[in-house]
Amino acid sequence: MKRKSLADDPCPIARSLDVLGERWTLLILREAYRGVRRFADFERELGIAKNVLSTRLKALVESGVLDRTPSPDDARSVEYRLGRKARELFPVLMALALWGERWACDGKSPLRFRNRHSGAALASVKVFDADGVEVQARDVSMERVAPDAEDVAAA
Amino acid sequence: MKRKSLADDPCPIARSLDVLGERWTLLILREAYRGVRRFADFERELGIAKNVLSTRLKALVESGVLDRTPSPDDARSVEYRLGRKARELFPVLMALALWGERWACDGKSPLRFRNRHSGAALASVKVFDADGVEVQARDVSMERVAPDAEDVAAA
Repeated sequence: MKRKSLADDPCPIARSLDVLGERWTLLILREAYRGVRRFADFERELGIAKNVLSTRLKALVESGVLDRTPSPDDARSVEYRLGRKARELFPVLMALALWGERWACDGKSPLRFRNRHSGAALASVKVFDADGVEVQARDVSMERVAPDAEDVAAA
Repeated sequence: MKRKSLADDPCPIARSLDVLGERWTLLILREAYRGVRRFADFERELGIAKNVLSTRLKALVESGVLDRTPSPDDARSVEYRLGRKARELFPVLMALALWGERWACDGKSPLRFRNRHSGAALASVKVFDADGVEVQARDVSMERVAPDAEDVAAA
């Protein structure tokens, strides 16, 4: 079976990539985290072509990751702001950042992420279950949820 | 400034995406985590075109994320196995999975990740600094590291 879109893939990783997986999308969100809000500023900071930026921003607004609102300074222009969906991407971005520092920068990352209160470098991203127990890759199983199992359980 | 490749971007998130950001790459790694090792099995499990799979696997081997080794069962065929770089992607994959369960599956993910020992669902991915303090997005600053600062400090 060929899949054209990942939107129908049963795996939540694939569903996430359907929303986030285009080349520039996570970098646009990184800039939004840094406080960038206007089209021209995304364009300048990322060195991205206008048409690509326009397509990516539109998709992020449609999927509810960014909110598109009139600028408070100038009602003729618009701003793109992080919605709740975007704010919960923080662990994704930091997991990518720490992996990149370690494995994609020859051990010398030109940028470093720190705790602004103490100056301590960010060091790890850990996975926990609902009981608060930290889990490693070897501890994880993936199971298929029966359709409407939760509806049945709630009935 | 236009950037053709993210490999020279100073940000470790961009560097990671240069290695991992092509559409199928993280799903190939998800399958490798599930134990898939052979070309034909990746092809079948993902429903991916042979030429795309071949290109992605080659890039992952070149960047040292997957190891390409002769199959122990059949010396004429090869296997792709997770290297250390890939094993440390676990938090990236789980952060994407939990975000996808919450925000990209209408609240009804057909797949669920669990702690295989207790059955507890995976619930959160948290970011810690070098002191072991959990940090949120608002606590993080990004700073530029001076070139060779660590060499100077070590001298």
